[in-house]
Amino acid sequence: MTDDRLPTAILGASGYIGQHFARLLADHPQFAPPLLVGTGRSHGQRLGDVWVLAEPPPASLEPVRLVASTPAGLVRAGVRVAFSALPSGTAGPLESELVRRGVSVFSNASDHRLDPQVPLLVPEVNADHLAIARTARAGRGLLVTNPNCSTTGLVLALAPLVGLLRPRVVHVTTFQSLSGAGYPGVPSLAIADNVVPYIPAEEEKMARESARILGRRRGTTVAEAPFPVLASCARVATREGHLESVVVEATRSPTHAKITEAWARFDPLAGLGLPTAPHPPVELHGGSDRPQPLRDRWAGSPARARGMAAVVGRVRWEFPYLRFFVLSHNAVRGGAGGSVLNAEYALARGAIPSRRS
Amino acid sequence: MTDDRLPTAILGASGYIGQHFARLLADHPQFAPPLLVGTGRSHGQRLGDVWVLAEPPPASLEPVRLVASTPAGLVRAGVRVAFSALPSGTAGPLESELVRRGVSVFSNASDHRLDPQVPLLVPEVNADHLAIARTARAGRGLLVTNPNCSTTGLVLALAPLVGLLRPRVVHVTTFQSLSGAGYPGVPSLAIADNVVPYIPAEEEKMARESARILGRRRGTTVAEAPFPVLASCARVATREGHLESVVVEATRSPTHAKITEAWARFDPLAGLGLPTAPHPPVELHGGSDRPQPLRDRWAGSPARARGMAAVVGRVRWEFPYLRFFVLSHNAVRGGAGGSVLNAEYALARGAIPSRRS
Amino acid sequence: MTDDRLPTAILGASGYIGQHFARLLADHPQFAPPLLVGTGRSHGQRLGDVWVLAEPPPASLEPVRLVASTPAGLVRAGVRVAFSALPSGTAGPLESELVRRGVSVFSNASDHRLDPQVPLLVPEVNADHLAIARTARAGRGLLVTNPNCSTTGLVLALAPLVGLLRPRVVHVTTFQSLSGAGYPGVPSLAIADNVVPYIPAEEEKMARESARILGRRRGTTVAEAPFPVLASCARVATREGHLESVVVEATRSPTHAKITEAWARFDPLAGLGLPTAPHPPVELHGGSDRPQPLRDRWAGSPARARGMAAVVGRVRWEFPYLRFFVLSHNAVRGGAGGSVLNAEYALARGAIPSRRS
Amino acid sequence: MTDDRLPTAILGASGYIGQHFARLLADHPQFAPPLLVGTGRSHGQRLGDVWVLAEPPPASLEPVRLVASTPAGLVRAGVRVAFSALPSGTAGPLESELVRRGVSVFSNASDHRLDPQVPLLVPEVNADHLAIARTARAGRGLLVTNPNCSTTGLVLALAPLVGLLRPRVVHVTTFQSLSGAGYPGVPSLAIADNVVPYIPAEEEKMARESARILGRRRGTTVAEAPFPVLASCARVATREGHLESVVVEATRSPTHAKITEAWARFDPLAGLGLPTAPHPPVELHGGSDRPQPLRDRWAGSPARARGMAAVVGRVRWEFPYLRFFVLSHNAVRGGAGGSVLNAEYALARGAIPSRRS
Repeated sequence: MTDDRLPTAILGASGYIGQHFARLLADHPQFAPPLLVGTGRSHGQRLGDVWVLAEPPPASLEPVRLVASTPAGLVRAGVRVAFSALPSGTAGPLESELVRRGVSVFSNASDHRLDPQVPLLVPEVNADHLAIARTARAGRGLLVTNPNCSTTGLVLALAPLVGLLRPRVVHVTTFQSLSGAGYPGVPSLAIADNVVPYIPAEEEKMARESARILGRRRGTTVAEAPFPVLASCARVATREGHLESVVVEATRSPTHAKITEAWARFDPLAGLGLPTAPHPPVELHGGSDRPQPLRDRWAGSPARARGMAAVVGRVRWEFPYLRFFVLSHNAVRGGAGGSVLNAEYALARGAIPSRRS
Repeated sequence: MTDDRLPTAILGASGYIGQHFARLLADHPQFAPPLLVGTGRSHGQRLGDVWVLAEPPPASLEPVRLVASTPAGLVRAGVRVAFSALPSGTAGPLESELVRRGVSVFSNASDHRLDPQVPLLVPEVNADHLAIARTARAGRGLLVTNPNCSTTGLVLALAPLVGLLRPRVVHVTTFQSLSGAGYPGVPSLAIADNVVPYIPAEEEKMARESARILGRRRGTTVAEAPFPVLASCARVATREGHLESVVVEATRSPTHAKITEAWARFDPLAGLGLPTAPHPPVELHGGSDRPQPLRDRWAGSPARARGMAAVVGRVRWEFPYLRFFVLSHNAVRGGAGGSVLNAEYALARGAIPSRRS
Repeated sequence: MTDDRLPTAILGASGYIGQHFARLLADHPQFAPPLLVGTGRSHGQRLGDVWVLAEPPPASLEPVRLVASTPAGLVRAGVRVAFSALPSGTAGPLESELVRRGVSVFSNASDHRLDPQVPLLVPEVNADHLAIARTARAGRGLLVTNPNCSTTGLVLALAPLVGLLRPRVVHVTTFQSLSGAGYPGVPSLAIADNVVPYIPAEEEKMARESARILGRRRGTTVAEAPFPVLASCARVATREGHLESVVVEATRSPTHAKITEAWARFDPLAGLGLPTAPHPPVELHGGSDRPQPLRDRWAGSPARARGMAAVVGRVRWEFPYLRFFVLSHNAVRGGAGGSVLNAEYALARGAIPSRRS
Repeated sequence: MTDDRLPTAILGASGYIGQHFARLLADHPQFAPPLLVGTGRSHGQRLGDVWVLAEPPPASLEPVRLVASTPAGLVRAGVRVAFSALPSGTAGPLESELVRRGVSVFSNASDHRLDPQVPLLVPEVNADHLAIARTARAGRGLLVTNPNCSTTGLVLALAPLVGLLRPRVVHVTTFQSLSGAGYPGVPSLAIADNVVPYIPAEEEKMARESARILGRRRGTTVAEAPFPVLASCARVATREGHLESVVVEATRSPTHAKITEAWARFDPLAGLGLPTAPHPPVELHGGSDRPQPLRDRWAGSPARARGMAAVVGRVRWEFPYLRFFVLSHNAVRGGAGGSVLNAEYALARGAIPSRRS
């Protein structure tokens, strides 16, 4: 049997998102087990040695040692697809260099998210934005980014509503989990018995990224969505899962039933067979006190899509204000899983260039 | 020396708010050490035996035993002022009976908050509402309520802004602490590593109570404020202090400086000499990540007013949207302390009827 | 296909342990999907409505309604095996009545644990104690209990060492999780930012139950182990998994290697094919800071045995003192899973009487 | 009025223990407000800017800027007494240099704790060890260390018992708070919903330091206590206060009353008038579930001695095993407060050399 899975690497494999990438790619049907590229002190250590997630490391990758590597080295190693969990600042130039050398990069880093020719992709929401990618020049890899962890859940919840409600403005207050800050991230003494109502640059990211993702593509450019997203971001002492309180001020007045129907029917990736795609991508929870991070963070089916669905609940509609809560797993749907799904989508669309010959 | 402090009682002294009442009244200059009226199983126990606050019980009340009592019994015991921390449902009829018998009641319970002739009072905000109290008929006591714990911080923060911004709507998302649910309250397994985006009846209370408190008195009636307060309430795993993310949609456009100035100048109780009144009642915090429950819950000076100030921070103003966070101590400013301040204010205004002869 | 799985019921199915029973029995190869017998207010509710675990309810049982039932009713319904998660006090007489009527009971309740003719069973440790069960009289069911949640992990860790070290005394200090107290259990305000160094009756249970389980059977009686187990029990704010700090004072002096070898070789149920039995039952973790509740609570393989293994770590041996930490999942290995494994073992030994004809 | 308070400095003033030093020294009757010597990035910042404690910074020191300094600089600035909260490694040589230059140093760092000529002092326990200090040579300052945070509470609880019980061995398991690791210290993701049963070097420190403190001075040397202290140390998610489960194996058999009496009578510093000394230093709590970190960490009277008392509870005595829990505030009694008390004691004994002329 020949293995036709694409050779991959995880950049920043020792970090929190990097480990979620490892979890998702350990036995992926389309991507081969990844090369684990670590940063700094992690070189030479086994993945199991640096593991910080609550779940055990995947058995097949646990003994694999993290390596140092350069773009040239990754090319030599035959890597076709790199998943980037690099810290912002470091990510930008390295990802660019890889793309120049023909490696396709699916990145969770913020550096290239707002580049005019780089898709900021949530395939259920703006799949057609993939078309803005600058891969024309022969030999270049594809570069696709996924949004900030708090943006992903929001745009998934909003996407089915935009046409229906024609929002005038969206207000969102977040309850973001500890893992959103990576590892070591938030000192325990800063957050035990506390809430911190500030996350650097987060509110700006939510505003800009939402406007772009919900914007309309015209050719190879994207026109931002015509309504502002105003965020107030706070850190709470949960491990994983970002909860958000959303108010949409609508300019149209559909019935409550039309709104829940819009969510219920939303499944634009149905039939594509993407392994990590959740069906449905937005789960509407009828419980009086849901969604909750503890209980709903792993929503998503089939099994491979655990943690990939956004969960919406507590829907209150008094025209012109629609209020609801939405939860999504910041490190899965809003992180590693987002990029894995982007790669699956790009692959399905034939958008991952084959190797430079 | 004769003690001219008013004889008092705490109703529901064994509960979480009841214990905060005990803390505040143990050595009050105007109110004598309270009779501790307990409910059910607490009778005969010492206050120290049922104590659940993190702070130690006041030394003078720690050995005092909780008693059962009836309205008639309290009258016989000479009680002039009763502070009520009774559960809603129980509170209503008992408070009414006490008032009929000439005892003035300052209540944290919700039962009478929306009665047309009962002031729902936050003295810095709507002191003149005291005038709607039905105490004309000789021999009746005064009945004054303080609002729900999450409403208090909000109206303190909004009061200085209403005239300046003429709000069209106010959106608020809360991060409410465990103690807001009393003791035993929230099961640890329900909230550890979790946020619960629902608190029964809380959003309705915030809407109605805010509208009333910020409303205008005309004679003995109150016209509700002309803008809605739309709340989304959540419980987080902090011990004390309710944090709130607020968005005011304004119809006027003052400068940012005018807004902060309005808060800075706000101190309507200055000069009245109320022992528990904080000066200023709203503290504007300049830190980039404040207010925080852990660090700001005990704001308020002088010393007796610890936990009585609301703290505002992270002010962002892009017309027409003013965003900020406000924190106040739910069990002090939003609970026992609110009623103690109401009693001090009523006393200063001569509104506590003297004893039926 | 005929279903030869035994008809079962869960008594106390709405509680925390009851829900773990439901999780474990939803698709068990030997026991049919259980009748869910609830207590009090749970009658008529669906299992999903009362669900409190972090994991989602099993899909097949989620819509099943809890029922009231009597022993006679259970017999009429054909129940052969009842799993009891009843509160102590209630459990005793009900379990006795069921046994008299021919239903076999595997109980997590404490009422019958110290009855002379009732096995207190941890099959890896004292499988032969099953022989003391009083099932001679025709028509009686079998009654088997599993120990208290904190005892189970301890005896699993000690069993391989007793012969090797001949303990003079065992000291144990526990770090017990919130779920050990059931639901609603510990109030969040009692434990947030806190440790409570007392759990009612727990230290006595650990002493007595350990002495019995590690005791030697002579015919149908058990002689207690000849060394005392002295416990100091505390509650900490973890969700699941009891951690214990153990000191064994030894009278023999084997090498360190002999001790770890004793643990490594320990697998007395190997080859029996019990579905829920973990292999090995005691996992020795080499990490410098393990076992940890967050990361090791679900130890145990194969998949059906997740949460069934005890994890031992930080072994320090300076004769005569052996120190180590042990962790086990209180609600699985130390609760529902313990009784399920007992039932599997009894079934394998032919000890579950067939139905009264 | 001349100020005869001794000029002081805090070394490492920006850290967690440094901030507790600032809190304790802001208005001390014997020590002048300290120079705040920071490390690295803190230079030039105001104390308020780097403040991380839950309590607000002392008003008088809040605006004071942290400075860089050398031993020579401190001497020039007239500093007589330096309180050291420096990290181990850095502390050693710097403290030595200060002492050579005539500055007396009271250190919380571990570097010099086991030096033969440096007192490791808990004045209620081994006040006479002060005599081993090498200050004979003219011009040298005094160097006194306080023990590790987890050792302090233990030796306070043991001191009154040693003569009575003549221990054969002491076993201790700790529940250590987050602040014991300083700031930023423990990552929140490492400890939320978790216990970590390992603290680097802690068990060894407890063994060695206890043996030394409880040892007998003979001239200028100390003979270690004749019984081992065997510790098992764990980190739990509390903010402040180290709880310890202690088992003393006794060789003598006094009555239970004699044991509690020994604790009750213990107050060797009575009458010395040391401002920060708690009276009594060991509080025996009669509650069934005490001591608790949340509720007992601030034990100690008078007011200046808050957080300086150890609290003992749950005493169980079955010869030869005495079991109890002890709690003490790791950052106060076991940190900054320990060194302040040492300085007060040395001052009372005339052991702080006057300035080199």
